[in-house]
Amino acid sequence: MIASASTTPVHAMPPAPVPWSASVLTLFPQMFPGPLGQSLAGRALDAGTWRLDTQDIRAAATDRHRTVDDTPFGGGPGMVMRADIVHAAIAAAYDLPAEAEPPATPARPLLFLSPRGRALTQARVRALAQGPGVVLLCGRYEGIDQRVIDLWRAEEVSVGDYVLSGGEPAALVLLDACVRLLPGVMGAEGSAIEESFSAGLLEYPHFTRPAEWRGRAVPEVLLSGNHARIAAWRRAEAERITREQRPDLWAAHAAATARA
Amino acid sequence: MIASASTTPVHAMPPAPVPWSASVLTLFPQMFPGPLGQSLAGRALDAGTWRLDTQDIRAAATDRHRTVDDTPFGGGPGMVMRADIVHAAIAAAYDLPAEAEPPATPARPLLFLSPRGRALTQARVRALAQGPGVVLLCGRYEGIDQRVIDLWRAEEVSVGDYVLSGGEPAALVLLDACVRLLPGVMGAEGSAIEESFSAGLLEYPHFTRPAEWRGRAVPEVLLSGNHARIAAWRRAEAERITREQRPDLWAAHAAATARA
Repeated sequence: MIASASTTPVHAMPPAPVPWSASVLTLFPQMFPGPLGQSLAGRALDAGTWRLDTQDIRAAATDRHRTVDDTPFGGGPGMVMRADIVHAAIAAAYDLPAEAEPPATPARPLLFLSPRGRALTQARVRALAQGPGVVLLCGRYEGIDQRVIDLWRAEEVSVGDYVLSGGEPAALVLLDACVRLLPGVMGAEGSAIEESFSAGLLEYPHFTRPAEWRGRAVPEVLLSGNHARIAAWRRAEAERITREQRPDLWAAHAAATARA
Repeated sequence: MIASASTTPVHAMPPAPVPWSASVLTLFPQMFPGPLGQSLAGRALDAGTWRLDTQDIRAAATDRHRTVDDTPFGGGPGMVMRADIVHAAIAAAYDLPAEAEPPATPARPLLFLSPRGRALTQARVRALAQGPGVVLLCGRYEGIDQRVIDLWRAEEVSVGDYVLSGGEPAALVLLDACVRLLPGVMGAEGSAIEESFSAGLLEYPHFTRPAEWRGRAVPEVLLSGNHARIAAWRRAEAERITREQRPDLWAAHAAATARA
């Protein structure tokens, strides 16, 4: 008789937790985890709270020079990454054969980091952090053949209104923003609630010891111990800073407040 | 008689080029150069086109536990980085003693990366790249005591409307955006002119070989060889993409066009 290895059936065991999973498609895999290997994100990576796999797009090239790009149709400067190569790399990230059709609704969304994308917001970050993970496509050179972006219905995401040397620094920013929201990552230190953008306002200013420094005193109200006055002061400061620094956010906040 | 070492006086020699210089103040110096050590930025760093020095803020701490932070006045979660410690770290970046007054107009601007800052734009990136460099202050925890930000009149800069674990990923993004614009960095590959945001519009889509891929043909106009038609098509596509993806940029562009 075979021994008792099967007395606790596998299906009766609690399922192993599935970590939030990021796949990055890049020509520079050595840029990852980079800063995400340190501090909060790095500890969470070591603890298995999230997983990162980096795929070298060049591995999908089929010629002996490992070519991934070609000149743009219609002329112009720079090189364009080829649709067929990028397609094979994306398919591999989804554990599909190189020639596969894109799945109708992949569990993890495919995001293409591009200054042409919609602006990344904290609301989108929060939604991504609540999902199973992301597949991030990083372009270099002039860009990526649009047909592969269209075929995969990739979500084009911009981290800001400036131009980077490639998608990789943007991917690092997006992953950092998501990972800090994963359960357990911020620990006691973090407050995902009282922070910039959570209420459509920027955050109030912070002060710590010493109470007087170079002739500059901490605002008196913060030493008062009066929690209601402190809360009111912080709220007023958050509103002032938002109005001064970000008229666009202030207008949106004012409109939302008026509707409520 | 002493030989001819002095026959060419030092003052007659052309001045050595002064590289664009970035100093990063951080609690995680090991995050740098990170991705900036690779690809375009990394080659430019090796070539001496720009310089990066990273200063550990913790080195400015004076107690034996190397404390840099304390609890916030007025209560609330998290820790706040101390004004006196951060001041000493900034002073060191400007080669000043720990207790020095901030210079009236430092040659390199001090930028504090914070979601509370003004949004970074390509115009600001261009101006920074044309200057002598930057000093970047990266916060962690809840933030930095506001008095040191005020004393140094630091420029608060936000790379986007989302919250990061600290200023470091934002600093990497800002440096990447600046460095690619330094003379000689992009080389033949780059075109700083025909790119997103240069004309207030997002960039048109790119295509390369194969001309047909998975039943999808490249737009016929791009194969026409008619440069005027190609330019008109690209312009129309840039306008369409801007309208669809970024109504805010499109409104600004339309207003600017109406004024012109």
